[in-house]
Order: sequence, then C-alpha cells, then structure tokens
Amino acid sequence: MQLTAREIADIVGGTLVGNADEPVTGVSGIREAQPGDLTFIGHPRYLAAAKNTRASVIIVPRDLVVESPHTLVRVDNPSVAFTRIVERSAPAPVRPTPGIHSLACVAPSAKLGADVAVGAFAVIEEGAVIGDRTFIGAGCYIGHESVIGADCLVYPRVTMRERTRLGQRVILHSGVVLGADGFGFETIRGERQKVPQIGTVELGDDVELGANSCIDRGRFGKTRVGKGTKIDNLVQIGHNCVIGEHCVICGGVGIAGSVIVENYVTIAGQVGIAGHLTIGERAVLGAQCGVARDVPPGVTVFGAPAIPHLQFKRSAVYTARLPSLVAKLREMEQQLAEMRSQLDSVK
Amino acid sequence: MQLTAREIADIVGGTLVGNADEPVTGVSGIREAQPGDLTFIGHPRYLAAAKNTRASVIIVPRDLVVESPHTLVRVDNPSVAFTRIVERSAPAPVRPTPGIHSLACVAPSAKLGADVAVGAFAVIEEGAVIGDRTFIGAGCYIGHESVIGADCLVYPRVTMRERTRLGQRVILHSGVVLGADGFGFETIRGERQKVPQIGTVELGDDVELGANSCIDRGRFGKTRVGKGTKIDNLVQIGHNCVIGEHCVICGGVGIAGSVIVENYVTIAGQVGIAGHLTIGERAVLGAQCGVARDVPPGVTVFGAPAIPHLQFKRSAVYTARLPSLVAKLREMEQQLAEMRSQLDSVK
Amino acid sequence: MQLTAREIADIVGGTLVGNADEPVTGVSGIREAQPGDLTFIGHPRYLAAAKNTRASVIIVPRDLVVESPHTLVRVDNPSVAFTRIVERSAPAPVRPTPGIHSLACVAPSAKLGADVAVGAFAVIEEGAVIGDRTFIGAGCYIGHESVIGADCLVYPRVTMRERTRLGQRVILHSGVVLGADGFGFETIRGERQKVPQIGTVELGDDVELGANSCIDRGRFGKTRVGKGTKIDNLVQIGHNCVIGEHCVICGGVGIAGSVIVENYVTIAGQVGIAGHLTIGERAVLGAQCGVARDVPPGVTVFGAPAIPHLQFKRSAVYTARLPSLVAKLREMEQQLAEMRSQLDSVK
Repeated sequence: MQLTAREIADIVGGTLVGNADEPVTGVSGIREAQPGDLTFIGHPRYLAAAKNTRASVIIVPRDLVVESPHTLVRVDNPSVAFTRIVERSAPAPVRPTPGIHSLACVAPSAKLGADVAVGAFAVIEEGAVIGDRTFIGAGCYIGHESVIGADCLVYPRVTMRERTRLGQRVILHSGVVLGADGFGFETIRGERQKVPQIGTVELGDDVELGANSCIDRGRFGKTRVGKGTKIDNLVQIGHNCVIGEHCVICGGVGIAGSVIVENYVTIAGQVGIAGHLTIGERAVLGAQCGVARDVPPGVTVFGAPAIPHLQFKRSAVYTARLPSLVAKLREMEQQLAEMRSQLDSVK
Repeated sequence: MQLTAREIADIVGGTLVGNADEPVTGVSGIREAQPGDLTFIGHPRYLAAAKNTRASVIIVPRDLVVESPHTLVRVDNPSVAFTRIVERSAPAPVRPTPGIHSLACVAPSAKLGADVAVGAFAVIEEGAVIGDRTFIGAGCYIGHESVIGADCLVYPRVTMRERTRLGQRVILHSGVVLGADGFGFETIRGERQKVPQIGTVELGDDVELGANSCIDRGRFGKTRVGKGTKIDNLVQIGHNCVIGEHCVICGGVGIAGSVIVENYVTIAGQVGIAGHLTIGERAVLGAQCGVARDVPPGVTVFGAPAIPHLQFKRSAVYTARLPSLVAKLREMEQQLAEMRSQLDSVK
Repeated sequence: MQLTAREIADIVGGTLVGNADEPVTGVSGIREAQPGDLTFIGHPRYLAAAKNTRASVIIVPRDLVVESPHTLVRVDNPSVAFTRIVERSAPAPVRPTPGIHSLACVAPSAKLGADVAVGAFAVIEEGAVIGDRTFIGAGCYIGHESVIGADCLVYPRVTMRERTRLGQRVILHSGVVLGADGFGFETIRGERQKVPQIGTVELGDDVELGANSCIDRGRFGKTRVGKGTKIDNLVQIGHNCVIGEHCVICGGVGIAGSVIVENYVTIAGQVGIAGHLTIGERAVLGAQCGVARDVPPGVTVFGAPAIPHLQFKRSAVYTARLPSLVAKLREMEQQLAEMRSQLDSVK
C-alpha cells in the first residue's frame, strides 16, 4: 500500500486537514497504529487516543473537534470510509472455486444451481436443493430435502438437518447447527419422555448466523428468523421461536421455546429470554438481562429479572445510596434519643 | 391430512364439544393457526389465545373452562394428544439406512453391532464398539476404544474422544464434543502448567445431549451423567462432574469441575455452578442463577449469588420499596426538625 | 497397578505417615474412592472428606493437620504428586500416527513439517503451513495460507479459517472455530449492512482453547491471544480483541469486540465484557460479572454491572439488612408519634 493523505481524501470524498503528502503504507486500529498507518475514529470516546496515536493520518467525523497533531481526513461516516481503504489494502479475499469437489458426497436426487461450489467431504443428502452461486464449505452436512437459496455462504463444518430452509444471501458461519431437535419432554412419573420434534427451521434472506450458534427445529411448524436479522456466535434459539426482521442478536444469547421477537429488536450479549414471551418491535434488551415477562414495543430493559431502563437505573441509584441511608437512620435515632431525654426533663 | 373433529376425538380418546363434522386439514401453534387447523392449549395462560385463534378445532384440558367459539376436544393431556395427531400429519421421518457408507473410515479393530448405520466421512477409530441399530451420522468422529450402546442416535458432526462411553438409546445432537480435556492447570510462577486429563466420560441410558454441548473428560476417573437426564444446547459440564439421573439441564448452563448434581434436579437456562459443589436431589436452580455454595435437596434457588426462592423474592420486594423508604426517611427527618424547634421553644 | 504406600512416598518424594505396606491398586477422587485407592486433598476444605473417605492412602499437604485413620503421604504439592501416580496407572495415551491419512485432502501448495500427523477427512488448503510434529485431527479444516507452529494439537473437527495463525505447542479442542467473521454492521435506515471482516487471528505459543470456543477474525489487523493463555469451552472472543499473556478465561465467557485484556488476568465463568474496554494486568473478574467499564490493574470485580469486590460485598451486606432497616424505621416512626403527643401535652 502506497498512498498519500491527499489520495485517501480523494478516494473517500473527504476534506483534508494537514499534510497532503503524508505517506500512508498501512491501516490499523487507533491504539495499535504505527507511523505510516491510516486509522480512524468514529466516536468522541476515542478523542484522547486520536491525540496520542502513532498513526500518520486519521479519518474523523466531519464535525468533530479533534485536537491532534496528525493529518486528518474529515468525512460523514469514518467507519465506512476506513473500510473502503482497508479493502484496497487487504490481500485478495479467498473465493471458493465453483464446482463440486471430487471428495464431496452429493446425493443423486439433490439439485444444484449454476456455479455452486461444494467443498471436500461435504455431504448433500437426497432431495436437497442448492441455489445458484451458493458456497457449501468443506465438511458441511446438508440434510434430506433441505433448501438453500442463491448466493449463500455456508462456511466449513456447518450442519443443516433435514428439511431446513435458507433464503437468499444467507451466511452460516462454521459450526452452526440448524434444525437439531427442540428441547421438549413430557414428565411422566418424574421421568422425561421425548416429545417428537417434527417441524423445521426457516431463515429469511440476508440472515447471518455466527459460529457455533444453534437454531432448533420446531416441535411442529417452523422456527423462523426474519430477513436481514444478524445473529452472533454461540447463540441458542429454541423450537418454534419466531424472530422478526432486521433484528440484532449478540453473542451468547439464549432464547427458550416459542418466543416471538418482533422486527428491529436489539438483544445484547448473554441475554436470556424465558419461553412463550413476546418482545415488541424496536425493544432493546441490555447485556446479560433475564427476560421473564413480555417486553412492550420500543422499551429498553436491563437487569435480571429485566425491568425498564429508567426503573433499573433508579433502583441502582437507590441501592448505591444504602450506606448513606443507614448512616442517616443512625443519626436520626440518636437525635430521637436526645430529644426524648430533653422531653423527659421538661415534663 | 383430511380428518373431522369427531375422528380426532376418537383417535385421542377425547370428548367432543361443538361441530363433529368440522374438517381439519393441518396442525399449528395457537397463535399461527389458520382456518382448517387443529391446535391445542395445555395451560390457562393461553385462554385468551384460545378465544382469538383462527384454528377450527382446539384440544383442551378436560376440566378447563374455555370460552371459545371453536370446536373443542377435551382430553387429559392436550400436549400428548396433539402430538399423536401431528405425527400422523408429518412427512415420513428421515431414517438412516443401515450399513457403512462407502466413504466412511472404520478401523479394522472396531466392532460394529447388527444393523448399525454409519454416514459418509465418519471416522471410527481402533477398538471402538458400536451397539446394534445405532446410527453414527456423517462426519462424526468416534475415538479409540470408545463404546456406544444399542439404539443410539449420534447426529452428524459429533466428536467423541477416545475411551468415552454411551449407554443405550443415547441421543447426541450435532456439534457435541464428548471427552475434550478438562480445564485443569497448576499455576507455577504465574504461568499455567497443564494437568494431564486422563479420565473419561460416561453417559447413562436414555441421556440426550443438545447441539454444540460439551462434556469434558475427567482429570482421572469419570465425568458421569446418569440415565434419563436431558441436556439442552450449548451446555458445558466440567471434568469429574457427577450428574444424577432424570435431571433436566437447559441451554447455556455452565457447570465447573467436580460438581455433584443429584437425581431429579432441574437447572434452568444460563445457570452457572462453581466447582466442587453439591446440588441436592430435586433441587431447582432458577434461570441465570449463580450457584456459589451447596444447594440442599428440594430447595429452589434464584439470583446471583443464588439464594432460596422466598429469600430472593423478599429481597426483591424490599429493593423495590427503597424509593418509598427514602421518602419516609425524609418525612421523618422533617418531623424531627419541627419537634426540635417546638421542644426548644418549650424549654 | 500394584504399589505400596511406601513405594508411592518414594516416587513422589513424600513423607509417609501410617502403614508403609498398605497396598494401593487404583486412584480416585476423595469422594468416590474405594478401599485400595490412592487419593489426595489439596485444600483444607476437604478435611472432613479425608476423615470419611474409603481410600486406603491419601496424599496431603506437608504441613496440614489431618485427622484421618488413613495412611498419609505428605508432600509440598499434593495435586502434582497425585498426577505423577495417576499417569503411571493410566492406560497408554492415544498418540496420533505421523503421516498423512490416505483419506485427507492436502492442497499441493501446503507445506507440512517433519512428522506431521493429518487425520482422515481433514482438509488443508492452498498455502497453509504446518509445523513439525503437529497433529491435525480427523475432519479438521485448515484454511488458505493459515500457519500452524510446531508441536500443536489440533483435535478432530476444528475449523481454522484462512490466514489464521498458531504459535508453537498450541492446543485447539474439538469444535473450535478460529477466524469466523467479526460481528460488524453499519446500520443504514434501520437495516444492517455487513462491514467486511478482512483481518486475521493470531494465537501465541502454549495457548489452549477449549471445545466449541470461537475467536473471530479482526475487522482489519488481528485478533490476538498472548502466549500461555488458557481458554475453556464455549468461550466467545470478538473481533480485534487483544488478550494478554498467561491469562485464564473460564467456560461460557463472552468478550465483545476490541477489548484489551492485559497479562495475567483471570476471568471466571460466564463473564461478559462490553466492547472497547481495557482490563488491567492481574485483574480478576468474578463469575457471571458484567463488565461495562475499564477495570484497573490488580482489581477484583464482581456483579453486573461489575464493581470492585469490597464495594460489591458491602452492597450485598446492606441489601441483606434491608428488612431490619425497615423494621427500625417503623419503630422510629412510632417513637416520633409518641413524642409528638407528649410534646403536645407539655405545651
């Protein structure tokens, strides 16, 4: 990579402040940057870092006051602008070669679209359908009669059990398990009898599902995830959940069975949601919260059990005040005693 | 599916209330149901849904008062009855074909029972023993000298390390890892030295283990799970744990090393249990609780650190009362001040 | 195994107390031990167990007062001593046979060192480099241009995506996913646009990573784990994290993106850390805590949100005192009322 600050400003449509000829030979995060690096800040919280970084050029928000000895490039969206330069400097991405690897195992009745790529030791069972240009990585298992749309990326070592379905442009990261049995049992004399799990799983267009995440098949009917929803690693979604469109679900989240999550919901890391609840549109569930009742649309909740944001904050403030409360109580007790003795002497 | 309400009542041994000729063409959850569907409710919490559902016929508990315009079928156990109809309507389940796939890799000294099915790209190492009618899915790894009972289902992409053992009718879902090394280190001058983990893992009859769950091998001796215990997805069980019989362990639970969980214990989602503790028979651990000391038999705990149910509830009530407490304190303070000035004027 | 207590004391360099001829035929944990077993205690918390165990010989800390009818062997480090005997009694460990399995798929341009072992159905892509004596288990996927040091153990069914790197003597347990895309999106009109994740992952020497754990590749640059750090099962480390040397990270931990964890940090089970934070050297994060701001070096934190240990303890003590506080308040209220009426009568 050999660019000047001026060239970078031109590429990203930014305004240059400082040395136009400043040479840039690499890209880096603000804290790890070395001389010659381009970096960026997207948020005022990094203003101190922008002052101290060893980077040569920083992409910054257009209207942020930045005290920095460095050359700046001002843009509307620093993250997007930075990505643009990063992609120029990155090694060529690894692209799957279209075609079925000679060591893959594709059933005769499976239907593969145009330019499908299937890696070594992948298994595609009878009746499966794979859309055009979709990539099935090495060691994947695509079960009987499963259907995958066009332009999907199914990374190595994913399991899709029988009759599960993906829309278009879905990304499944390595280790994903789609369509394992839901966790359903009848208790008969203290012992658990398995309830058959004969439904399926269906993921909408543009869904992304992180490494080692699991979505169970429905007991009957479908476990569904709406289009555009992005799910991080090690997430568990129980049987018969209906997850809406354009949601964000962070790492380590666990959602029990039959939960409805409406559109545009944000679920932070390690949240747990009990079964059969409804999370309303645009609700936000704070990290690690434990949701034990329905959350209305637009509401932000925190804590375990989860309560509305302001209530949670107020409760935290009061809890923090407990020591001073106790001190006050002691003081008042003493005053009471004094007054009592005064009162006795007056009588 | 073409049944009448009368035929459904006959199949499940239920009492019909309403239109005996009501045609049923599908099955569905109460909230997603369409006209022509059969659905069910098992719990009064769904009474409102039973009133509003678009389903044509509802299976309900025999003695529940249900206000609904729909045709009802009254039974003792609606969930079991519904399952019976669902299974009739389901597509034929996918059953593994007995035999060893030509692309599997089975060591010469492995012993396979009658009617065993082994999928493509599965590896069965030297000295392993597989019971009659057991299914080993595609891409599984069964380590040296591991022993699997009869009628087990080992779904695609499971790892069983060397010398691990399953009883009869065990189900391992995709992504399970059995017998990875326990997390054991000696700290020597601040650095961690690995402690050899040379024990094994043993699962009793009828155990089910969810997708991407892990049970570590013992440091020495065995990590054990008793018969009939059901474990959900993404659960971690540490080395040398002894889990009892007929327990239920929900998704995302983490159990550190050398924990004893006695029989019939219920562990809700995302619970954490510290090492070397004992959880008594029939104890119940509430969702997300953090168990830092032994739990006596039969006790229900909540919270982090986990405390008995009633204590937790009382604590929550008091915490919720904090704002009114503070208000009361202020009021009393003012009264005190007033009285003091009165007292001064009296003196 | 056929040893006497005397022989065991000699092997571990311990002091014998009791019957030198006591025969030992097995090893076991203190609670499961049977007559004839050797066991050990490393901590006073097991003193009661040491009294009641059925073991024949117990290895104990040299200076611990142990009341026990059993023959004792006193040593400096009972755990290490016990391990020494356990290893003698264990079945021979399963060692991979050097060589490339005939059913592995190794790209022509991959470079394999001396005595490398590659299992069946493993895939090693173009440009990958594998160090001397390293073991790549069955069904592993080693991506394009990934580099693995010498003497590593990569257990069956691990995924290393393209351009990820391991130092020497690294251990990856089954189900690990290294280098999946970081969870990065730009929100554009409520919908999430994927931010390219074109960095890599780099693990230092002697790192161990537990079953089904995931470390995401950097958005740009590297997600890094320093030498000697040990990570348990089902842990998630987000993109661009920099984890220090000789840390311990227990099961179920989730670390969001761009977190810095300095050297010698201990992170207990199921902890969550929000993005862009710094955890100072030798800090200790208590089980299940939720870290929402930087943790200074050497500080121990607990709770969610995480606060310093003493503050957390004090807060818990105050919360526990709430019922007595309320009682006290009531009592004072009554006293106030009494005094008021007295005061009124005096006036």
